[in-house]
Amino acid sequence: MSPRTIGVTEVALRDAHQSLMATRMAMEDMVDACADIDAAGYWSVECWGGATYDACIRFLNEDPWQRLRTFRELMPNSKLQMLLRGQNLLGYRHYEDHVVDRFVEKSAENGMDVFRVFDALNDPRNMARAMEAVKKTGKHAQGTICYTISPLHTTEGYVKLAGRLLDMGADSIALKDMAALLQPQPAYDIIRGIKETYGEDVQINVHCHSTTGVTLVSLMKAIEAGADVVDTAISSMSLGPGHNPTESLVAMLEGTEYTTDLKMDRLLKIRDHFAKVRPKYAEFESATLVDTDIFSSQIPGGMLTNMESQLRAQGAGDRIREVMAEVPLVKADAGYPPLVTPSSQIVGTQAVFNVLMGKYKVLTGEFADLMLGYYGEAMGERNPEVVEIAHAQTKKDPITVRPADLLAPEWDKLVDEATSLPGNNGTDEDVLTYAMFPGVAPGFFEHREEGPKNVGKTAEQLADEASNKNEADRAVKGPITYRVSLGGREHSVIVERA
Amino acid sequence: MSPRTIGVTEVALRDAHQSLMATRMAMEDMVDACADIDAAGYWSVECWGGATYDACIRFLNEDPWQRLRTFRELMPNSKLQMLLRGQNLLGYRHYEDHVVDRFVEKSAENGMDVFRVFDALNDPRNMARAMEAVKKTGKHAQGTICYTISPLHTTEGYVKLAGRLLDMGADSIALKDMAALLQPQPAYDIIRGIKETYGEDVQINVHCHSTTGVTLVSLMKAIEAGADVVDTAISSMSLGPGHNPTESLVAMLEGTEYTTDLKMDRLLKIRDHFAKVRPKYAEFESATLVDTDIFSSQIPGGMLTNMESQLRAQGAGDRIREVMAEVPLVKADAGYPPLVTPSSQIVGTQAVFNVLMGKYKVLTGEFADLMLGYYGEAMGERNPEVVEIAHAQTKKDPITVRPADLLAPEWDKLVDEATSLPGNNGTDEDVLTYAMFPGVAPGFFEHREEGPKNVGKTAEQLADEASNKNEADRAVKGPITYRVSLGGREHSVIVERA
Repeated sequence: MSPRTIGVTEVALRDAHQSLMATRMAMEDMVDACADIDAAGYWSVECWGGATYDACIRFLNEDPWQRLRTFRELMPNSKLQMLLRGQNLLGYRHYEDHVVDRFVEKSAENGMDVFRVFDALNDPRNMARAMEAVKKTGKHAQGTICYTISPLHTTEGYVKLAGRLLDMGADSIALKDMAALLQPQPAYDIIRGIKETYGEDVQINVHCHSTTGVTLVSLMKAIEAGADVVDTAISSMSLGPGHNPTESLVAMLEGTEYTTDLKMDRLLKIRDHFAKVRPKYAEFESATLVDTDIFSSQIPGGMLTNMESQLRAQGAGDRIREVMAEVPLVKADAGYPPLVTPSSQIVGTQAVFNVLMGKYKVLTGEFADLMLGYYGEAMGERNPEVVEIAHAQTKKDPITVRPADLLAPEWDKLVDEATSLPGNNGTDEDVLTYAMFPGVAPGFFEHREEGPKNVGKTAEQLADEASNKNEADRAVKGPITYRVSLGGREHSVIVERA
Repeated sequence: MSPRTIGVTEVALRDAHQSLMATRMAMEDMVDACADIDAAGYWSVECWGGATYDACIRFLNEDPWQRLRTFRELMPNSKLQMLLRGQNLLGYRHYEDHVVDRFVEKSAENGMDVFRVFDALNDPRNMARAMEAVKKTGKHAQGTICYTISPLHTTEGYVKLAGRLLDMGADSIALKDMAALLQPQPAYDIIRGIKETYGEDVQINVHCHSTTGVTLVSLMKAIEAGADVVDTAISSMSLGPGHNPTESLVAMLEGTEYTTDLKMDRLLKIRDHFAKVRPKYAEFESATLVDTDIFSSQIPGGMLTNMESQLRAQGAGDRIREVMAEVPLVKADAGYPPLVTPSSQIVGTQAVFNVLMGKYKVLTGEFADLMLGYYGEAMGERNPEVVEIAHAQTKKDPITVRPADLLAPEWDKLVDEATSLPGNNGTDEDVLTYAMFPGVAPGFFEHREEGPKNVGKTAEQLADEASNKNEADRAVKGPITYRVSLGGREHSVIVERA
């Protein structure tokens, strides 16, 4: 029997540098790898998403739409893939449906092929409009399950969710493990469950981070269960808070009933390219190599860092253990949302408030909205007592409808506001940039003409820093006597560190 | 059905710091972890071997026998494990049988429980005497298969080798993958083959490095095939050229048909201990995070580095590609020995000679010995033409007997030589130290009284270096004007970099 071919999505151009180097990689550090990526045989190339869009206009003075068009041009044979936060698009609030439609149309028009649509709460209603919009463009609509661990998150629950996404017309299902929590056995069970329930033909893509050191095994089990496509990063852009190495995946499958269509000579070139690039961004890298704490704490690393800095700002840095104990209680009260942007920040901040000010004495606006249904529905019931507190504090009523149903049309207003900004180029793309990031877009429009910046450090700059360090190592520790000629007379001067 | 319990060997105290930090870890940086290691529930604790012994006397001025006794005392409930190079013991030549016996007796007497006996060529005759000696002490004799890839190294061949080791009385079989070459499918096939041929009760231990990023999956497949014990390193001492993280193994098995008896609270303490220690040895660490090159080149990273420096020393640094192409040819001529110390050095150096001086124009003494059988038998036939060249160059006859059969008794001579050295304490242990490392032992004996050294850097030293670096970053680049008071008069002095 000939081996089954497993598709691979390369994430080096999006999630890998987002996870490893705070999304800072400049376009000029990616273009030279594109020809090899295009020819390597990937199922798709992930290259666009909320953080890359944000970083483009916030740090790199680069038009994210131009980046997309460049990728399209440089990788004509590849399916380009993006990550889309459902009704949030790439921003941090719900957008009215016509904005969603416009964003998807424009993305498709500029070259996007595969839309991985997700919602932080796994609420299908928050994904529906975006998926529908993708279907209308004829592109690939991927419905996403965010993986988390809770008493309510069972294999059956995930299988059911996959069913809802398929009913909504999903061309494939993504199992997205942003916290490296997906262990081998649940990976197997969920994928087998989906395949057995909805048919072996249902395409399943699996996305894992590598933080806990165990998820390449999860990919193996996922493949054994029938997964069709898995996400990896070329080895020189892999591991730590990032992803499993592409070449290791290839090696893993050698001799098994599975194979990939990847061309190793191309992979080596891609690897060598990013091996040269990665050191330029060393200052943005975290020191995390492997961290299995999340299996006991259930708290993603980034969320923990956030809560710690909030506590320190209040002079309560010593109370992190109490906050960590509070997080699961708040999460349960909120109906067990997965802890991913933005729910991780909302739950984490409320846990900090509870510890510092007393249980639910003060709710953040976001947490109140979460409890009242304005972010959508999580897997579990929300605690009615806390819902009542949220109602009392905010005077807002709890809702059960899809949150975006409450929004008034806003496209024309966004056009008016965007086009009045200096430097706006009058395109729908610019309106969307303004819609996503209204605080950052005006400055970007104004300075766009200055062209892209590269915040990485060149080899020269790095060498210079290293040589400074060496000089410091040789620096004088004890007193030194100099002969100094001054006004024609010789003096002996002793110099010593004060 | 209750899950099958998988034993775990913790390698933090031996192979992990050998692989990650050039074996430099001082005993004082290990003792505080021992109580937790002893209570964590490991099958065994690897803590002794050739490189740790060597580093003790060469760099750390520490008596390796005292280290063993300290481990014994601090971990009374654990099986201590060592790696023994068969007839080479911990040195770089074959020893006469009585030296082998004495070494094993003394090791057992000082507290060793499990002897992992291996031979670089996988020649069972080179392991036989050591295994016999272990059996006599009543300790655990583990026969080892060094894993490599070659046209001759088939599953059947490995299974057959396991049979020979079992015939020799092996209490268990180790599958040792020093180059991270063991892919999931062969791991499964070899272990299944051994179990099916010799019985499910045959204990199999699996040792993998993590360099290629794929071997945690291989451990999973090994376990599914019936492996009983696997080697891992606590996460803060894991990955890169080292081993898979112990906590990730635990997470990997959760929910499967397998489990470990490890206590997570102890693992976290061990992890936290070494997380503090590891930065002290940062200067010894390599930058390798993941490297899959070996799958195509078949050349371990350390061997490549070696050959490159040999070439550079000859002003031929640009010929590494030719040498890399030559290595597999030399390896084939030598009968496909696994490339591990010392065969990797012997084959690599001969490949360099062939490229620089013409094919087999000059043989190294070691390569000639390898070709003439003085290291034992590899899996394949040696090329008779090259054997003839070796004979012609050295005037030595090829042998087919076990190499150690040709050695005369040497114990009394070693005693005489060792006891004449200043500082020798008159014990058999000191004779063995001299026998293993005759070049290093005299200096060690002489200075032993000065006590152990720690070549790691304290937090203060590291902070000092970091602050020097910061000072350098702030260092003056342009001219600065100082007011200087000298002999009662004020002067203005301009200081500028020359």
